[in-house]
Amino acid sequence: MKKDENLKNMLAQLDTYRDYISTQISTTQFPSNPHNLYEPAKYILELGGKRMRPILSMMACELFSGEFEKATNVAMGVEIFHNFTLIHDDIMDEAPLRRGKETVHKKWNSNVGLLSGDILMIESYKRLATARPEILPEILKLYNITAIEVCEGQQMDMDFEESESVSINEYVKMIRLKTAVLLGCSLKLGAIVGGAANKDSNDLYDFGTNLGIAFQLQDDILDVYADQNKFGKQVGGDIIANKKTFLLLTALATANASQKARLESLFTETDLEKKVKEVKEIYAELNIKEKAEEQMNIFYKTAMQNLDAINATEEKKMPLRAIAMYLMGRES
Amino acid sequence: MKKDENLKNMLAQLDTYRDYISTQISTTQFPSNPHNLYEPAKYILELGGKRMRPILSMMACELFSGEFEKATNVAMGVEIFHNFTLIHDDIMDEAPLRRGKETVHKKWNSNVGLLSGDILMIESYKRLATARPEILPEILKLYNITAIEVCEGQQMDMDFEESESVSINEYVKMIRLKTAVLLGCSLKLGAIVGGAANKDSNDLYDFGTNLGIAFQLQDDILDVYADQNKFGKQVGGDIIANKKTFLLLTALATANASQKARLESLFTETDLEKKVKEVKEIYAELNIKEKAEEQMNIFYKTAMQNLDAINATEEKKMPLRAIAMYLMGRES
Repeated sequence: MKKDENLKNMLAQLDTYRDYISTQISTTQFPSNPHNLYEPAKYILELGGKRMRPILSMMACELFSGEFEKATNVAMGVEIFHNFTLIHDDIMDEAPLRRGKETVHKKWNSNVGLLSGDILMIESYKRLATARPEILPEILKLYNITAIEVCEGQQMDMDFEESESVSINEYVKMIRLKTAVLLGCSLKLGAIVGGAANKDSNDLYDFGTNLGIAFQLQDDILDVYADQNKFGKQVGGDIIANKKTFLLLTALATANASQKARLESLFTETDLEKKVKEVKEIYAELNIKEKAEEQMNIFYKTAMQNLDAINATEEKKMPLRAIAMYLMGRES
Repeated sequence: MKKDENLKNMLAQLDTYRDYISTQISTTQFPSNPHNLYEPAKYILELGGKRMRPILSMMACELFSGEFEKATNVAMGVEIFHNFTLIHDDIMDEAPLRRGKETVHKKWNSNVGLLSGDILMIESYKRLATARPEILPEILKLYNITAIEVCEGQQMDMDFEESESVSINEYVKMIRLKTAVLLGCSLKLGAIVGGAANKDSNDLYDFGTNLGIAFQLQDDILDVYADQNKFGKQVGGDIIANKKTFLLLTALATANASQKARLESLFTETDLEKKVKEVKEIYAELNIKEKAEEQMNIFYKTAMQNLDAINATEEKKMPLRAIAMYLMGRES
């Protein structure tokens, strides 16, 4: 039971970090004018969310320096950047809701969303720019590369919607860029601030990136196979939308001619219950769930190896191990 | 005639700087993929324009160090930032044309414009981040403040369209933020790179900002009073669009009840020739042109005083004096 208790303690620790960052956000003073610029920025930041990126920055800093507060500015930077991407992505995806509330472009309009997203991106740089001069160039270099990669990932995701054929490799590259690298970056920024050795901060970056890919693959799996009572979104939503997920792409790549024809004819099926049921039947014939889980496990295992490689005691690494297990809903 | 010749030499010098920055832009290598992200970024950068901001950075650096090339990265940074604002502003204004060519969101679509604008903003930070570590914090601080101000100015400009009453002070604040501060920032960044003393780089910032306001006021004046053969846009365009310019706001603020009623009834006049003619008649009654020129001259004169205050020989300041005269179409 020792391990379970440790995990419980670590999850409590997660709440401590989350509360800390929520306080930082709620006490952030934006100018009151122009109202239409700063009100939406404050609105999206206060919508909540898991605050996973700033928590990762703080944990990484704690790991190497014993003081998570030193990472406050980079933690806020990555959280603000993440919220910039949410506003702009929601405009591009025409999404009406975000965390159960109206998206910025719905509550105001697209122009307000565009410009308040821009201001959040600049605000994130403002936080990073406060880093100690001796680490500032390294921090900016990592951050700039990551920000560019996140935009590239979003563009790839949009391009995939129009594309006839997307390879599994391209898909994994897309989720790596769109989502995973920002987790790696959040960790590495915290590690740099905490004074980590280069090798350790790079291992931590890889840990975050591989964990991020595993998490996204799990998201694809859950969208089809989750228990609806425990899942925030509609189970089967990706199938209904013909979304090119790891599962669909693997099915298309491994199906025989007749299975492929059945799959493709289901894209236009209007009886949605039938559509989900029959796509799942084809997935079952092709062992798609197992194949996706296998890939997910490879990335998760690699992440754990990255964590193992870091030069710190197992006790100090425990919070990061716990957050990985928490994210993946695992017990080991 | 010595002065005229000097000015002619200086204008030739302008071309040298412009060619230098054009070469920098045309030889910039963007990744080839995602195509829809980098192609629009390259397209807008290569549309041309006066390249005023990077020229100012290079001139400022030359003034204090004798080597304009040292400012290449900050010069490219401000030019790339300017192009980011053009893409996003054109989306917000639904503008079909930019420099006689299709705008990015017209040639591609709004989503492509949104994301390629984002990537340009990050690219601009990438250039700035290459500054020497000892000046990097100062450069970022100035740049972040300026970028935020430019967004605030754009939001104010959009808010003014919906607003019942806009004061002259608010209007001048808007053009200062939306346009002028980026000129001041371009100069100051070049000055910092060139090793200028604080006082001098601040004077240069003020020179650029005051010159920028004078230039925008001149733009308002020319829109009504320019010779159509020498003016790139339609003369009277602002009057036709009921645009809240310095001229209209001054007229509304100084008109008597009957003049104000006439002005306001002209807002809905559909005979556009009549509309322009009668608004200009009211402007004449109220000496609006003279009042606008007076304000413009105050800002121009202050800019010249800022330039005078800088600790450098008159000969070295000549290029900046020339560019001010060139921008304002003046001979002294």
